[in-house]
Formats: sequence, structure tokens, C-alpha cells
Amino acid sequence: MQLTKDQLQTINQSGLSRHETDFNYLLDKLLANGTAVEDVITRLADFQVAIPSWALGAGGTRFGRFSYHGEPASLEQKLDDVGVLHALTQTAGAVSLHIPWDIPTDYAAVRERADSLGLKFDAINSNTFQDQHGADHSYKHGSLSAGEEGARRQAIEHNLEVVEIGRRLGSQSLTVWLADGTNFPGQRNFQRNLLQTQDSLQQIYAALPDDWKLYIEYKPYEPNFYSTVIQDWGTSLMLANACGDRAFTLVDLGHHLPNTNIEQIVATLMLKGKLGGFHFNDSKYGDDDLTVGSTKPYALFLIFNELVYGMRNNPQNPDLAWMIDASHNVKDPLEDLIQSLEAIQIAYAQALLVDQEELARAQEAHDVVRCQEILQDAYRTDVRPLVQRARLSRGGALNPLHAYRKLEVRNELIRERGKHTVATGL
Amino acid sequence: MQLTKDQLQTINQSGLSRHETDFNYLLDKLLANGTAVEDVITRLADFQVAIPSWALGAGGTRFGRFSYHGEPASLEQKLDDVGVLHALTQTAGAVSLHIPWDIPTDYAAVRERADSLGLKFDAINSNTFQDQHGADHSYKHGSLSAGEEGARRQAIEHNLEVVEIGRRLGSQSLTVWLADGTNFPGQRNFQRNLLQTQDSLQQIYAALPDDWKLYIEYKPYEPNFYSTVIQDWGTSLMLANACGDRAFTLVDLGHHLPNTNIEQIVATLMLKGKLGGFHFNDSKYGDDDLTVGSTKPYALFLIFNELVYGMRNNPQNPDLAWMIDASHNVKDPLEDLIQSLEAIQIAYAQALLVDQEELARAQEAHDVVRCQEILQDAYRTDVRPLVQRARLSRGGALNPLHAYRKLEVRNELIRERGKHTVATGL
Amino acid sequence: MQLTKDQLQTINQSGLSRHETDFNYLLDKLLANGTAVEDVITRLADFQVAIPSWALGAGGTRFGRFSYHGEPASLEQKLDDVGVLHALTQTAGAVSLHIPWDIPTDYAAVRERADSLGLKFDAINSNTFQDQHGADHSYKHGSLSAGEEGARRQAIEHNLEVVEIGRRLGSQSLTVWLADGTNFPGQRNFQRNLLQTQDSLQQIYAALPDDWKLYIEYKPYEPNFYSTVIQDWGTSLMLANACGDRAFTLVDLGHHLPNTNIEQIVATLMLKGKLGGFHFNDSKYGDDDLTVGSTKPYALFLIFNELVYGMRNNPQNPDLAWMIDASHNVKDPLEDLIQSLEAIQIAYAQALLVDQEELARAQEAHDVVRCQEILQDAYRTDVRPLVQRARLSRGGALNPLHAYRKLEVRNELIRERGKHTVATGL
Amino acid sequence: MQLTKDQLQTINQSGLSRHETDFNYLLDKLLANGTAVEDVITRLADFQVAIPSWALGAGGTRFGRFSYHGEPASLEQKLDDVGVLHALTQTAGAVSLHIPWDIPTDYAAVRERADSLGLKFDAINSNTFQDQHGADHSYKHGSLSAGEEGARRQAIEHNLEVVEIGRRLGSQSLTVWLADGTNFPGQRNFQRNLLQTQDSLQQIYAALPDDWKLYIEYKPYEPNFYSTVIQDWGTSLMLANACGDRAFTLVDLGHHLPNTNIEQIVATLMLKGKLGGFHFNDSKYGDDDLTVGSTKPYALFLIFNELVYGMRNNPQNPDLAWMIDASHNVKDPLEDLIQSLEAIQIAYAQALLVDQEELARAQEAHDVVRCQEILQDAYRTDVRPLVQRARLSRGGALNPLHAYRKLEVRNELIRERGKHTVATGL
Repeated sequence: MQLTKDQLQTINQSGLSRHETDFNYLLDKLLANGTAVEDVITRLADFQVAIPSWALGAGGTRFGRFSYHGEPASLEQKLDDVGVLHALTQTAGAVSLHIPWDIPTDYAAVRERADSLGLKFDAINSNTFQDQHGADHSYKHGSLSAGEEGARRQAIEHNLEVVEIGRRLGSQSLTVWLADGTNFPGQRNFQRNLLQTQDSLQQIYAALPDDWKLYIEYKPYEPNFYSTVIQDWGTSLMLANACGDRAFTLVDLGHHLPNTNIEQIVATLMLKGKLGGFHFNDSKYGDDDLTVGSTKPYALFLIFNELVYGMRNNPQNPDLAWMIDASHNVKDPLEDLIQSLEAIQIAYAQALLVDQEELARAQEAHDVVRCQEILQDAYRTDVRPLVQRARLSRGGALNPLHAYRKLEVRNELIRERGKHTVATGL
Repeated sequence: MQLTKDQLQTINQSGLSRHETDFNYLLDKLLANGTAVEDVITRLADFQVAIPSWALGAGGTRFGRFSYHGEPASLEQKLDDVGVLHALTQTAGAVSLHIPWDIPTDYAAVRERADSLGLKFDAINSNTFQDQHGADHSYKHGSLSAGEEGARRQAIEHNLEVVEIGRRLGSQSLTVWLADGTNFPGQRNFQRNLLQTQDSLQQIYAALPDDWKLYIEYKPYEPNFYSTVIQDWGTSLMLANACGDRAFTLVDLGHHLPNTNIEQIVATLMLKGKLGGFHFNDSKYGDDDLTVGSTKPYALFLIFNELVYGMRNNPQNPDLAWMIDASHNVKDPLEDLIQSLEAIQIAYAQALLVDQEELARAQEAHDVVRCQEILQDAYRTDVRPLVQRARLSRGGALNPLHAYRKLEVRNELIRERGKHTVATGL
Repeated sequence: MQLTKDQLQTINQSGLSRHETDFNYLLDKLLANGTAVEDVITRLADFQVAIPSWALGAGGTRFGRFSYHGEPASLEQKLDDVGVLHALTQTAGAVSLHIPWDIPTDYAAVRERADSLGLKFDAINSNTFQDQHGADHSYKHGSLSAGEEGARRQAIEHNLEVVEIGRRLGSQSLTVWLADGTNFPGQRNFQRNLLQTQDSLQQIYAALPDDWKLYIEYKPYEPNFYSTVIQDWGTSLMLANACGDRAFTLVDLGHHLPNTNIEQIVATLMLKGKLGGFHFNDSKYGDDDLTVGSTKPYALFLIFNELVYGMRNNPQNPDLAWMIDASHNVKDPLEDLIQSLEAIQIAYAQALLVDQEELARAQEAHDVVRCQEILQDAYRTDVRPLVQRARLSRGGALNPLHAYRKLEVRNELIRERGKHTVATGL
Repeated sequence: MQLTKDQLQTINQSGLSRHETDFNYLLDKLLANGTAVEDVITRLADFQVAIPSWALGAGGTRFGRFSYHGEPASLEQKLDDVGVLHALTQTAGAVSLHIPWDIPTDYAAVRERADSLGLKFDAINSNTFQDQHGADHSYKHGSLSAGEEGARRQAIEHNLEVVEIGRRLGSQSLTVWLADGTNFPGQRNFQRNLLQTQDSLQQIYAALPDDWKLYIEYKPYEPNFYSTVIQDWGTSLMLANACGDRAFTLVDLGHHLPNTNIEQIVATLMLKGKLGGFHFNDSKYGDDDLTVGSTKPYALFLIFNELVYGMRNNPQNPDLAWMIDASHNVKDPLEDLIQSLEAIQIAYAQALLVDQEELARAQEAHDVVRCQEILQDAYRTDVRPLVQRARLSRGGALNPLHAYRKLEVRNELIRERGKHTVATGL
């Protein structure tokens, strides 16, 4: 199923008048404050977030999974789903594949399909946290960190194979989430694990094409519950430094201990030129993988505030790879992603409204009250008309969720695919 | 120092035109959605939060305190400070005293002063977490929970004395925050502590005037770091039930373990008719006592959403006692309180915008996506014009912080009081 | 596979001399302190913990599962596994079934088999957190708390059916773990959910045989990540009280927010006569379901200290249902359970060594240092010889893990069952 | 007050026979396992922990402080207190001063006194978290990280002055705990703060004598509650690397977010040769500063297990500076420190019993069960006789707490100093 701009324009009609009123009101107000509104809208329109292929079906927990209807059963169908998202939101212009779940059979056809949907292949993801049927070695006791040379070799080669697949699709970066760790004190040797992981990453890094980047995730726990080899940003950064200039730390919002100040980590990494990518989601307890902005929208804004600061002031840091990494257990996955994309755009818009010069002055004057006012003034502004305007400027839906429902996309997908398909990898 | 409505009206002038534009835009929009805007404004205007006497000076930590200038040095000056806050915000129409820090010498004069400032005496607070100079018994090993009968008796009698002081001022409720607990496993007997606390509270409850209420706080830790006698809402409710119909649980936002779902506690207590009061503040790590709404504004909104629900649907629950309980370590205390009051009003306004009927329908239809949209639509609305309108309707400042600075209130207080006063109790 | 006492006696031989030395040394020392050693050993020997049927196969996480070899594929084989554990440890004399995973076909045969292995049927568990194939209603949006009457009715009836199955096996209690909750703010109505849950539990309670008990678990999160209907002990107790005298709260060690003082909850519930059962496991981050005592053994000891206190001083509280509830992701499940049983016995033995009279005196004297010494003296004692002696007194293995390996139990199970069986329910 | 070896020997008499029995039993058992018992005892005897001067009086919280009697009122009296501790435990052979609380007037006399008590001057501590009376600049808005050049300069110079004082006393290292941070989002600029802190530390480092080390602490929160400039080990390590070879990270056990795996941090830092020092204490919620080993003794053992591993396998890491950093709110400070020292020795002894070769083999064989057994076997051993033997070998007390009470040390101190002295800095 593909949505056309005409379809969307037709649906947009009924809301345009309201939008004009909202937008003009806000425009007036922001211009009066000296905000460069056009620049904000351009940045919003340019902001593209990759959709991971595994987020297009219903997710679950260790206690089970309630499946959704009309899930994509093939890579092509996954691309179609992202195509729908991108047509509606104009901010989902990339897809992030996961190997071995998404190995193409016909590369040219896959590239062509993505192209026709306006989608790029963003960072590609390897998987060494599960055993594949018929694999020579098990990852039960580690993959890139494994003491057993066979398992480690297999994990390294898998990553190289992933790079090769990505290369043929036009991707230019590899994301490594290493689930390796332990459930019990003493189970493995911390130092040996770290050294072996470093060696494995260096081997992978050495084999990367010259124009590729390596993103290294960190996570304090789950699926291991005593220790994780790459438990925090400090470890990830250490490993990235040991690899080289094109290795970076990747921050996933859910991969932190309770109460971690994530925005400070972002600021530090950008200062060091070592923030490579970002996985968006939201959570209250652990790596809950909920809809972006559904639980802690102010934290998301504060993180974007540092990202915007870094994008302006840290030329040493590369362009970032943005991705949503969420699990859709009780919502239509596509609706969930639409809500996530909206929340991201809103937080970004709010952060773009922060008057950084004035903030710097208030900071210098130790005017703590004023500093807070500046951030909260931006945050309390209803920026949705700006996000809508950016979307309209690219031919997207005024209100993507409304359009999605109006166009009965899910029903259409069920008609096309049947009720009981299961997304590969789920 | 006292502010007059004339002074405020003069200052308001320059902003009124902007306000009219903002308000009318929002009014139009909300009316189009069927919102009862006038009712919202009335509720906002009627909402009054008590200011605790101890929040008017700079606070500190165990590592020290950076004092502020022009702090109030007497009960009268504390009333004046609250008077300034109320004049500006029109939402601080009550004061909450702490004994022994605020024992009046001339009750009639104090009542008169409060009256002239439009202030009521809300819940009065006892203190059994510190030893007073010359006290017969120390609370080092417990007060209301003490094994030592002398200390326990002294603590009970102190509470009765506090009630008597409150009675003479027109207060009608007593708040007990019991800091009793232990630092080490085995230090005291959990069951005996609980029984003794219950007995102490029952004695205090029995001596309350008929029109008084008893509010029982809970807190998991600090100043004790292994256990607290009243560690959670379950224990507080158990004790309130053991006292009687006019004993209630009081929720302080900072008194919870990491990640606690506070709004669910609020909903449960209101269902049971046992939520008595609320202490507002914000925090990231523990009982940080920061400016309301400065860290987790969405959580505050979600709590207000349950409060509004309860106020509409739970006649079994009494009117609540609202209070700010924060510590002002790096800001002008009055400015900090102005920011807190604004954040409270904003969250309340947003919660009032939630269309509860529509939410109920979406819940019934298991439309999880729509449920989230309904809450977020209210939350993302810029409700500040409604809060301003409510304030204006009572003669307050359009922008209290702006007026406070414009009127140079702090400088005036320093002129009156000198730089190095210290608020009693700090 | 069944182990005989003769087999164990033979294996025990080589270690008996060492054991005698260890035991006599400890006996001397404890008798010198006035400890009633015989009584301690009797209590240890009498202490029996139920093994849940689902813990006999390898567990996993949402990211996958590494299977183990020789897992039990039927209820009979599960009983056999528990029989092996009990033969070795003499402390696993009960099994806890989970329906629909363990529905017997031949009740008499199953009872007979359990009987011959010395096993009782402890609390039986219902499952309304997953949809069963062909079910009329889905639990995706709730079961006992569901707004939809069909799903709720189905969940109630499932529980009644579970009771009937349990009754025919000789079980006398039902454990309800209710996974119901929400992932997003606003998704459902807290108050309605609670009332419906209460009504459902009351219906189940009303249908219980007169000699049955109802155990109500609580859990703050997972598999739902915004709220759980029965989120804490306060809610569970409220529901138990609403059901009646034979309804109790069940504490699972992993079902708490970070840093919760669980031993205080235990003490409070026993004081109220409302602690019904206990699920043992260990965890560092969330409901990690690790081997008992593998992460926080001192916390386990402190909990046992309160349990021992309650068992001595709270006749109002019934005998408790003890169960291990763990997930064995990287260990042989039976070895994992042997380690858990050992850790439980050790913590219990240490708690039995605490001189409660002396502790009470130190508490009364505010001798905090001495209080700590008393607890730590018990905890630091190497009590393993006492645990061994209790085991030997019942014909168990001196060192169960050693015997398990010596007897090559796992190899034997693989020979009997094959490598690739999968335990039902996993 | 000073304790003589004769006094202790006399008191030890009554317990020696029991000790011999205990020790010989354990010796036999350990020798049978091939443990190098003499080596363990030598290491225990050589292990010396510094006592911070501020831990000798009663501590408190932001809610107040219950003072203790006979507290030291001068640097000399503080040395005497540590002398008592060292005489009793033989493991407190160093003192750690805090400037400006402990500025000597007569350096020679102070050195002589320390010498006569067998005490060294370990790392010296600066204080830029409080304003000193009459200081030119306030640290309210930062010290080493301050935007204001005056405050930053003052903070740097203070550190240099501290080094000079330390140099004259024979200390060879400076510990910087930087409390700088913010309470509110936006209050200060993360990147600028970090750069300024780096510059300040580099200036201090450049001025260090050649044989000095710099220890950099980290802490996630408190006394600031939104952010801390040096929030975690990653940041500390980054700063240490920016300073040079003699700059190291210092780990304080209480300075971590909930559930942090501290032992992994220790292992990583020792691998990198960058673990400089260690502050012992215990905590359940935050930086509770409780008696070492009073809450999580197994975690302490696991940390020591990594320390022992590092001391054996990481020649790249220097000798560590050990210190207790606790707050004594409800116990006699000296008794509290005796308990802490005992807990440290016990954990160290247990860790020394771990058979690292066997552990390595079990790890290699993926025998997770065995790995756990090895650690727990060491941990469950009652090692107190080893600790006693080490203490006796140096002329200390068999049971320091018993001796302390028997000798009525506190009463003697009260007689000497009076009841109401207050330790400087408290």
C-alpha cells in the first residue's frame, strides 16, 4: 500500500483553515520575540528519523505477545510500512535494517523500492544476542566478548557480513548493540571481557569501508541482570576511542539506570566529537521501549536542547543518526510510530525556540530563575503549528494520525496481507 | 512591605494587549472544542495553595547553606512575604506554620495581619525531628514511635500544643511528618514502632477539636537511611484508618522511591476517601525539594489529571489541603515560589482541559492511541493565557515574576530588614 | 529418574568426616553462646519450599531464550524433577502448578506419583496474562480488571477452574498474580480497574472451598510499563481485606521498586496477620528472577529475620506458603534450584541464630552498635554445617550439588528425554 | 587519651583461648583446601585505611544533628582519636585531613604527635563546597567549574594551599571532591562547566609536587539535584586523562545511581591503571554514608574481589589510597569506625580466599554454577579468626569493640574534653 500526495492533500483540506489561524497566531508571537521562524521550519522539515524494521510489528515481553493484524511479513512489506509513515509524516525518510531478519534476496529491487518511497538505508544492525538456527556456535556465553574463540569469530564475521549487506544497500554505518554480560557475580572476568570486546570491535572497525561509521551502544542491564560488558557511555566511549575516528557512542534513551542525567551525557559526548547516534523511545522503569514522549516529554526536550546546542557549537561532532527504537505491545505499530515522530518533532521545535544567547547571558549573570524561565517558555509554547507547517511544506499530512485513520491504512494492510502475518524477527 | 492592586494594575498595563490577543486566540480554539472555558478560569481563580513559613528563607543541604538577603526574621515578616506572593499571584491565600519556629506572641495581632493580607492559616505542622534547646527528652531514638515513654509523651504533648496554637489562629488541621526510623538493620523493632506510632497518633487524634483533620505524611527515607516508620502510603492509610474518619493520608511528591506511579496512589486514596493533602515540589533523585514543575512537569499534569477526576467523581473524599514544600537553595525564595505557583496553575489548567467523557469513551473502546492523544492534546496546549486571566480576575499580576522584579521587592525587603537576617528555623 | 536414599548415602560417605568436624566445632561454639542448636536443626529440617513447575526448564527474556537439554516435557516429568530436588535437598517437598500448562489427565496417577516422591501440591497458579489458543476473549486489555465483561468473566472462570484442578490434587490455596495494567498514561481508569479487580477477586474468593486460602501478589511494573493494577503491598492488602479472612498478600522478592525495604513490609503484614506467602528469587535491577541469594544475601537474611520474628510472635498470621520463583537463563535449572534452596536454608539458619531477647534489650537501651553486632554475628557465622545436619537427618545429600553432578542426573535426564524437549509453558 | 599495647594485651587475655580454637579450626580447613593462610594474614595485617578527620564527630542531615559527647575539638584531639582506633584495630594507620577545618598551627608538633601514634598523613582534602567566613568570592554558583573567574581562581588557589599544607605534613596526594553542579535544567552550560573544570584541575595538577597524586571523585547528585559537573567515573577518568599520569579516579561507594555495578567500574579502572583511591561506606538509597558493610556486605565483597584481582594482575595500577568516608548520626563515631574497619577487613579476607585460578577455569568452562559456588564459598566462610589473628600479630585488640567499651574510652574522652565540644567542620 502506498499513499499519494493527492490523497493527503484531499484529507488536509478540512483542517487547513484552522491550521492557518494557529500558525499565524504563533508566527506573530514568535516574530515579535525575534525568533527566526522560517529557519525553525526548515530545520524541522529537514529532520529525518530512521524507522527500524523490527518496530513494524507488535512487540512483546518475556510473558508473551499479543499480535497485531496486517503485520509486514517481508522486507518489501516493511519498506512499504515505512513508506506510509514517511508519506504521512515526511520525517521518516530512512529505514534501519536488522540482520539476519532482513536479508534481501534481490538487492536492486529492494533499493529501487526504497528509492521510490523516498527512503534511505540508515545504520544497519547486527544481532549476536540470539542463536540462529544451525549456527556453529552459541552466544549463550558471549559473542564479541566471548572467551570461546569460535563464538567470537562467528560474531565478528556476522558483523562483517552485515556491513557487506548494508554496503550493497547504500547504508553507511553499522550499529552494534552488544547484549553480552552476566547474570551472576563471578560468571565471567570483567577485564577479559572488555579486552576481547575491544579486540572484536577493532577487527570490525578495521574492515569497515572508508566512508562508514561504527556506532557502539551501551546498556546497563537486560537481557543480562548482573552486568553488561558495555554498561555505560564511559565504556562505550573508551571502546570508540580504541577503534578510531569513525567510531562513536550511540545513546538509546532507555539504556540508563534510574535518574541518569542523559542530557549531560549528550553534551559531554558532543563536546568530545563522539556522539554518533540516537535511539528514541520512552520509559518509566527500565528499557520499557514505549512511545517517544509518552512518559517524560520534558526530559526529551532537555535532551534536544543539548542536541541543538551541540549541532550549533560542536563542529567536531558529526551529523547524528536518528532512530526510533520502541516496542509496540498494545498499539497499532504504525500509529505508535506516528505518535513517536510527532513527539520528536515537537521536542525539537521547542528546543529550536530556546534563545541560546539570552540563556548564556542569564547563566553568566547567575540568574537561575531566568534560565529556567527561558527553557520553560520554549517548552510551554504550543509548537504544533510549526511542526504541521514543516510537514505541509513537504507534502505530508496536516495531522498524520487523523489521515492514517481516515485512509483506513490498517484495514487496507489487513486486506493485502491477511490477519495473521508475523513480522520476521518477532 | 505590601503590594497594592494599584501598583500591579499599573505594571500590568504594558502587557494587557498581548494578553488579550493570546487569550482570545485560545478562547476561540477551546470554545470550538466545546470546553467550558469560564468554568476553567473560575476553578483556577479559586485554587489556593498554602505557603509554608519555612520556605521563605534560603534552604540548604547537609553540606551547607548559601544564605539569601532580606529573609524574614519573624512570623510577622513571614506573613508579609506570603502577602506579597498572594498579591502577585492571587493563588497563595494561605500560610502553613511550623511549630516551634512560628509561635505567635500576640495572636490577635497575627490573625489581624494575616486577615489584612487575605491569608488563611492552613494546616499547622509539628516538629519532632529535632531536639529543642532545653527539652527534657531527645528524639534521637524516636518521637511518636519511641520506645522510651518520656520521649513519646513529650512528642504527643508537643503535637497537642501545636493544635492549640493552630486553633487560636483559625487553622483546622494538623500535619504530622514523622521522621522516625532507623539507619541500621536491627536498630529498632518494626512492629513495636508501628504500634507505638499508631497509639501516639490515636492519642493526638482523640484530642483534636471536632472540626479538625489530621494529615499523616509518609516518606521512604531521609533523615533515616535504613527505614522510616511510615514508609509509604499503605502504612499511612493503615494509620489513618486506625485513627478515624478525620484522619487522612498526605502525599508529598518527593516522598517516594524511584519511579513510583504517584498518580495511581492519588487515584486509590481518593477512591477510598482518604486523600487529605498534598505537598508540591519536584525532584530528580530523592526528596530534592526543587521548584514545582522544574523537572517532571508531565508527571505533575498526570497527578492533576487524577486530582481533577477525583474532585469530580469522589464525593467521599474531602477538599484537599494544598501546600508547596520546597527548599530554595540557589534562587530568591520568593521568585522560586512564584515559579512553583505558576507551574501548579498550569498543570491544573491542563488537567481541566482534559475531556474526561471522551477519555472514558476511548478507554472503553481500548483505543490506547486516542487515550494518549487526549491527554497530550491538553498538555501540549499553551494554557498560560487562562492562568493569567484567572489571576487578573482577582486583581493579581499579569506576570508575577516580571512584576516582582519591576517592583524591586527583594531590594525593598533588604532595605527594610537588612542583608543578614536569617529566617527562624533555618 | 528417581534417586534413592542409598545412592545418596553412598555419595555422602566421603564427606562425612569433614562434616563431623565442622558440625562439632560449630555446635560447641553455639552451645557456649546458649543457642538451642537442636531446635534450629529441627526447624531447618521442617522447612519446605515449593518448586514451581515452570522453573524446571530454561527461562529467557524478550530477546530470546537459550534452551537447556533434558527438560521435562510433561507434568509427570516435572514431578520427577522436583522429586530429584527433594531427594537431594529434603527441602523441596512441594510443587506449585501453573494452569493451563499443567492440567493433569489422570489425577489419581499424578497424585500417586507426587506421593511416592514425597511431594505435596502447594498453591496453584492461574494465568490470565497470556491468551490461550482459541480463547473467546483476549486479555490484551485486561483480565480480572477488564472493562470488557467477557474477558473479565473468562478470567474469573479460569480461576475457578484452576481451583477445581487444585482441589482434585490436594492443593489448598490459589495464587493470583495479576499482570493487568497499562503502558501509557490515560490508557485505562485507575479507579475502575481497581474496583473491577476487587469484584473479580471477591467472586473467586466466594467460590473457594472453605479450607482454601487466596494469595494476592503485587508488582509495580512488567509486563506493563506505566502502571500495574495491584502495584504494591498496600493495594494487595486492601484487596485481601475486601475479600475476607482467608485472603492474604503474597510477597515476591523481585516485585518492588529500587531500594524498597522489603523486610519492613514483611513485618507489617505479619503484624496484621495478612502475610500469606513468599516467592523467593534475587535481583539487582528489576524482577530479574535470579538464583536466590546470588545478589543480595544480606537482604535475604534480614527478611528471614523478620519472618522468624513473626513466626514466633504473630500467632495472628497463618503458616506461610514458601515458593521459589526464578528464571534459569544460563544455568542448569535443577542446579540453579539447588543453589536457591541452599541459600534459603542458610539465610533461615542465620536468622534462627539471632538472639532475639538480647536484640530486644539492645534496642531498648538504644545501643545501635550492639544491635548491628547481634545481627551481623549471626550472619557472619558459617551455618552450612547446620544446614547439612538438617538435610542428613532426613536422608538427603550432604552436598546436593556435588551429589547431583556425581550422579550425572542431567545426563540421565537427557538419556531419558532427549536433548530437545521443551518444558510446557516455556 | 592513648591506649597502650599492655592495656590491650590484658584485655585480650580472656578471649585468647576461644580465638585459638576458632583460628585452628579455620586454619586446618583452609590449609586442606590449599589456601596460603599465612599470606592472607600478612596482607590483612598490612592493610591500612585512612580515617578522615571529619568522621570523628557526630554527623547529621539537613534536618539537624544530634551531637555526641567528648568529640574532638582540635586537630590534636582528632589525631588522638585516630590513634585510639589504630591501637585497637591496627588497621587505621593513617589520617586524612580536610582544609580549612584542620589547618595545623605547629606543623612539627602535629607531625610528631601523628608519628608517636603510628599514623601517616594520607590524601588531603580541599573544600570548595562551602563559603568560608570572609572569603572574597562565593562558591554558590561554582568553584573549579565557575564561570566567574574570581571564584574559580580562589578555588584553584585554595587547592594549592591545601597541597602546601599536605606537603608540610608528609601527605602525598590531594583528593578533590567537586560539589559543583546545578539544581535546575539550563542553570549552567554543561560543556563550559566541564572545560573550566578541566582547566582548573590541570592548573592544580601542574602545581603538584612530583611525588604527588591527584584523586578526582565523582558523584551523580547531592548537594546539587539536577546535575553534577563530575557525575560519573567516565567523566572523572576523562579529566584524569586530561591532567596526566599521576591523576586518578577515586571511587566513593555511595556516589552512584541506584543499582550501579560498582565492581565492574573498579575492574575497568584498574585495567586502565587509573583507579587511585577508594572511599568506603554503605548506603541503601543515596549517599547515605552509613557504616561500611551494614547494608550490602556482599556487594562490598564483590568489590574487594575485583580489587584483589587488580592488585594481583594490574601492575599498571598504583597502590590505592583507602579511606572511610561515613557519617555517624546515631552511633558513637569511634564505635562506628571500629565496625567499619572490621567489615572492611572481613570483606578483604573473604576476597583473599577466592581461588582465582579455579574461578578462571570455571569461567572458561562456562560453569556458571561453579563460578557462583567459588565466590559464595569464600563469602560464607567465617573469616573473623583470620582478621583477629592479623590484628593480634600487630599488637591490636582481639575484639576492638569489646576493648573500646571495656576501657571506657568514650567516658575517658568526655572526662578529658567535656560533653559539649564540637568537632571542627561539623
